[in-house]
Amino acid sequence: MFVHVVGRNDKGIIIRGAKAHMTGMVNSHEMLIMPTAALGEEDKDYAVSCAIPVDAPGILHIFGRQTNDDRKTEGEIDQGNARYGVVGGECLTVLENVFVPWDRVFMCGEFEFSGQLVERFACYHRQNYGGCKGGVSDIVIGATAAMADMSGYGNAAHVKEKINEMIHLAESLYACSIACSCEGKPTPAGSYYVDPLLANVGKHNVTRLIYDINRLAQDIGGGITATMPSESDLKSPEIGQYVEKYLKGVAGIPTEYRMRIGRLIENMTGGTALIESMHGAGSPQAQKIFYSKLANLEHKKSCALDIAGVPSDALKPVRDAAKKKPVKA
Amino acid sequence: MFVHVVGRNDKGIIIRGAKAHMTGMVNSHEMLIMPTAALGEEDKDYAVSCAIPVDAPGILHIFGRQTNDDRKTEGEIDQGNARYGVVGGECLTVLENVFVPWDRVFMCGEFEFSGQLVERFACYHRQNYGGCKGGVSDIVIGATAAMADMSGYGNAAHVKEKINEMIHLAESLYACSIACSCEGKPTPAGSYYVDPLLANVGKHNVTRLIYDINRLAQDIGGGITATMPSESDLKSPEIGQYVEKYLKGVAGIPTEYRMRIGRLIENMTGGTALIESMHGAGSPQAQKIFYSKLANLEHKKSCALDIAGVPSDALKPVRDAAKKKPVKA
Amino acid sequence: MFVHVVGRNDKGIIIRGAKAHMTGMVNSHEMLIMPTAALGEEDKDYAVSCAIPVDAPGILHIFGRQTNDDRKTEGEIDQGNARYGVVGGECLTVLENVFVPWDRVFMCGEFEFSGQLVERFACYHRQNYGGCKGGVSDIVIGATAAMADMSGYGNAAHVKEKINEMIHLAESLYACSIACSCEGKPTPAGSYYVDPLLANVGKHNVTRLIYDINRLAQDIGGGITATMPSESDLKSPEIGQYVEKYLKGVAGIPTEYRMRIGRLIENMTGGTALIESMHGAGSPQAQKIFYSKLANLEHKKSCALDIAGVPSDALKPVRDAAKKKPVKA
Amino acid sequence: MFVHVVGRNDKGIIIRGAKAHMTGMVNSHEMLIMPTAALGEEDKDYAVSCAIPVDAPGILHIFGRQTNDDRKTEGEIDQGNARYGVVGGECLTVLENVFVPWDRVFMCGEFEFSGQLVERFACYHRQNYGGCKGGVSDIVIGATAAMADMSGYGNAAHVKEKINEMIHLAESLYACSIACSCEGKPTPAGSYYVDPLLANVGKHNVTRLIYDINRLAQDIGGGITATMPSESDLKSPEIGQYVEKYLKGVAGIPTEYRMRIGRLIENMTGGTALIESMHGAGSPQAQKIFYSKLANLEHKKSCALDIAGVPSDALKPVRDAAKKKPVKA
Repeated sequence: MFVHVVGRNDKGIIIRGAKAHMTGMVNSHEMLIMPTAALGEEDKDYAVSCAIPVDAPGILHIFGRQTNDDRKTEGEIDQGNARYGVVGGECLTVLENVFVPWDRVFMCGEFEFSGQLVERFACYHRQNYGGCKGGVSDIVIGATAAMADMSGYGNAAHVKEKINEMIHLAESLYACSIACSCEGKPTPAGSYYVDPLLANVGKHNVTRLIYDINRLAQDIGGGITATMPSESDLKSPEIGQYVEKYLKGVAGIPTEYRMRIGRLIENMTGGTALIESMHGAGSPQAQKIFYSKLANLEHKKSCALDIAGVPSDALKPVRDAAKKKPVKA
Repeated sequence: MFVHVVGRNDKGIIIRGAKAHMTGMVNSHEMLIMPTAALGEEDKDYAVSCAIPVDAPGILHIFGRQTNDDRKTEGEIDQGNARYGVVGGECLTVLENVFVPWDRVFMCGEFEFSGQLVERFACYHRQNYGGCKGGVSDIVIGATAAMADMSGYGNAAHVKEKINEMIHLAESLYACSIACSCEGKPTPAGSYYVDPLLANVGKHNVTRLIYDINRLAQDIGGGITATMPSESDLKSPEIGQYVEKYLKGVAGIPTEYRMRIGRLIENMTGGTALIESMHGAGSPQAQKIFYSKLANLEHKKSCALDIAGVPSDALKPVRDAAKKKPVKA
Repeated sequence: MFVHVVGRNDKGIIIRGAKAHMTGMVNSHEMLIMPTAALGEEDKDYAVSCAIPVDAPGILHIFGRQTNDDRKTEGEIDQGNARYGVVGGECLTVLENVFVPWDRVFMCGEFEFSGQLVERFACYHRQNYGGCKGGVSDIVIGATAAMADMSGYGNAAHVKEKINEMIHLAESLYACSIACSCEGKPTPAGSYYVDPLLANVGKHNVTRLIYDINRLAQDIGGGITATMPSESDLKSPEIGQYVEKYLKGVAGIPTEYRMRIGRLIENMTGGTALIESMHGAGSPQAQKIFYSKLANLEHKKSCALDIAGVPSDALKPVRDAAKKKPVKA
Repeated sequence: MFVHVVGRNDKGIIIRGAKAHMTGMVNSHEMLIMPTAALGEEDKDYAVSCAIPVDAPGILHIFGRQTNDDRKTEGEIDQGNARYGVVGGECLTVLENVFVPWDRVFMCGEFEFSGQLVERFACYHRQNYGGCKGGVSDIVIGATAAMADMSGYGNAAHVKEKINEMIHLAESLYACSIACSCEGKPTPAGSYYVDPLLANVGKHNVTRLIYDINRLAQDIGGGITATMPSESDLKSPEIGQYVEKYLKGVAGIPTEYRMRIGRLIENMTGGTALIESMHGAGSPQAQKIFYSKLANLEHKKSCALDIAGVPSDALKPVRDAAKKKPVKA
């Protein structure tokens, strides 16, 4: 199913397959095709990288559903992200015999580099997740604190403690992005490559801490974020007065404002927002695999042996046994 | 805003106010009104408990929005819970001068019992949360395991480990419901009252462990649960073939089945489902308040003093100081 | 190395091998020998269960070290558990050709029952862990709260919150013991057997929550629990006055009391106490293995399929494939 | 009790008081005295900073006890950290009328700078905790992996998964140290000051993640780390053969090596090592206090308001109310 070369001539190549989970595709002019795994010679047709206009002949985008996407076609309040969330989403992009001229083909058959290309792309992508989700979390924190203020419990000790906890977690995400960037090293080409171990650590923290941040947001946000009537109810000539009266928070703040913030919390802390933090830039297990490769466990063992007064070659029998009987993954 | 008595005569009472977050109200025949906090004499009009038909004159139900509720009016697949999730939801119930005859009034002004009534209701409600959400989690676990099977990674070591972890968490919830029931004691009236400390512990675990269970479900469920095209796309004469082809899991299982299970995971692990676990039967802080009251901390201190060889009255200076200067909450 | 039969005659059997991690052995009159795993016919000499006086000829107990065991031979304060912690500990018990008369032999070669025997023993043992460690945690909570009182911060909001959290965790452990007992079922012999799934869930929670409880105890206990001078320093004619003066907490409480409680916290929250919670009654992975066996995952899957509107035999292709290629553990 | 000025003349000042938890003091030539809190004018005698030889007249060091410190006076194996752990520990340092010449006095009465001085010191100290404990954790990881190898389960899937988790947590600590350093800014004096928010985030993570890392080390390390006989038993002519035989791991690795690594795990994962991670460079609550001050919560709120379509001054009623009735801490 992956995109692969099905034909080539002196003008260019013809490719076929599909790309899934394409965030932002429908808002873009061009797309980049890349392999998604290390490949062997038998897969060399899949070792293809190129740039194509998103509306080139043979391309079909099937837009996915996001949580509460229907609300984007109604009024404004129930969307939550009233200002910036109207468009966007993921799609399944199908490429049916798409022609790509040679001057837009960057890889075609060089399978031996595909693993490195995937790894580089993944690490750059994971680098930015702590910045992205750290920033997203700042908004969640702000919305949560605003909801607490509007509801009259912004100064309760346990609320302040939970908001501090959210700050702690969001900054932990941010720290990982900074760290893997700061520890980046220049490549021979002059561009900088992030520290791959720390980049993976950052993304992996996103797959966990976002759930804790959002749990706390839902804790402080209150049940009202899940049971609130609709914008139509609020604006209804008949029943709007009741919504206005009974969803009111502290004096002086319109009910509508509290509803808007409640909807923003609902929007940012459930469904697609969570799953995106989990799987965007690679699923959790994809990061864990890097740890075994990059963390230099043998060096850690030898330091421990030295401190404990054990000779440095003490584990040789284990290594020898492993050589005889290769370990299954 | 709380429901309170605004008039009374020899036939009955007249009440006014609102009840929020009313789960199942719109599917019920009768509703029970109860106070929501311990009350003082100045609030005795709020010490009211009675039963009323949900469609009595003066009652208005404003139905709330749930995550993805719009999908219930479309086809079947995108709902997730295709069989049993069509109706239901919470509402804001407004009571505008509703008459209740005396034979349906259970409390009217006896403010000194309102605290006990609330506490009892809360503990019974919290008792059942580990059973309810334990069972809900069993479905989430089953859906997750089915998705892993359908996608071809059901036997990966990390997937099996995560499903075991989900089982561990779900059974931990269930254990709390069993324990608080088992430790229940008969009241003078003959009915049994749950152990209130353990009932609160059970509900409090729901406010946390459900998030972990659902995080793992989204981990194993994959990004596809958030980016999947709609039922209409799958059934479209034009593009259905692509959805069919590219969302396919293991051989022999129709793409539609995999989509249905993916939608079920989406439905059960985000939005309203999470917030309901957080705030249903009382918000987290409501449980924590019980711990201070019920855990007999002074006895624990005296045991520790004894074991450490400290006289049992060693903390008297602290208690004396506390008496002089009452501690602020 | 496991204990096994090396000879038999008409009077009894002769066994050899070792038992490790024997808690309480040196304070007991008799020991029970049991197999430790499911066995096949080729291991039938290891299928042996019997009772032996702990000082029978051929038995050697090699007492293990516990954290800070040396302090038990000094004065009283630095032990922490001043009253009840003097004796006790684990040992490695070696059996060198120990004779056991037939009337004290309960199993000898019936390998086909060894798995069941181990499982039963393990589940009973795991049953009691939530009670045991729940109670131990009550003392840790009491000591922590006493330390906070003695140090003058017992009423700080964050301290009270953390103590409530400790209560929550300790009661969660206790709930599991109650639940697995309550759900126990009578065996044909009339004795009751605990619910094995819930018993494992309880023990597994001990391997985690004790670490959280103890972490919070160390948080509130303060750095002083790790840097405190010795009892000898406190009682020194020369420098005792400085220890007395500078480790003083609130007015009216002798420094010695605060030191005693600090030492109790140190004693109960680190080293052997932690490792015992981790591995006593079986290591964490031993519980996880039960989950796969006992949680009826196939039933959970079929419920999920039904709710999502998927036919009940939808996973047959996966099961068929599994039959063809047996899954590796 | 804090160190303060009790006399001054034209040669210098005379100070009195005590410093607690002094790590490394007994291995040092000089000590730096600093205030420990923001001070008001009434406390100006406590606003003192100076350098003193650790053996100046009037100074007394009372060495504290560490977990298993007695083992340092025995043989080598039971210490765990056989090579580098022999000396070291914390002490309570008493200053009884110690004279300090003016040229070694850096602050004397300038109370208005004491808060800033404490904050700066705390943040620099917290900066290095992720590097320190990240490195310490690398040794714990190495020891754990070596123990798994020596015991024959180094290739079990759940063991590898847990070691990867330990790596994840250790690198998360390290990332915070890098990030707060990288985001450091030059002061007018030209020296660089760390980002104080991220420095606190890093230390706060140490107070948690170390417990998780060590829990996993104890999980994989096995019960043997808590029940192992002593070095004397191993070397005993009589019973050493049994220890040798029954604590043996994989073929080819001497039992002594396995015991040494087991002792290293015991040494690094319990007692003082844990408490040091908790309270060194400031207790957890000390970091949380910084979050409220440094995280710019008002800005986060205003971003959330904007995104939700709420006017930027919507929270003015809350701020106005707060001004009227000042919030209690």
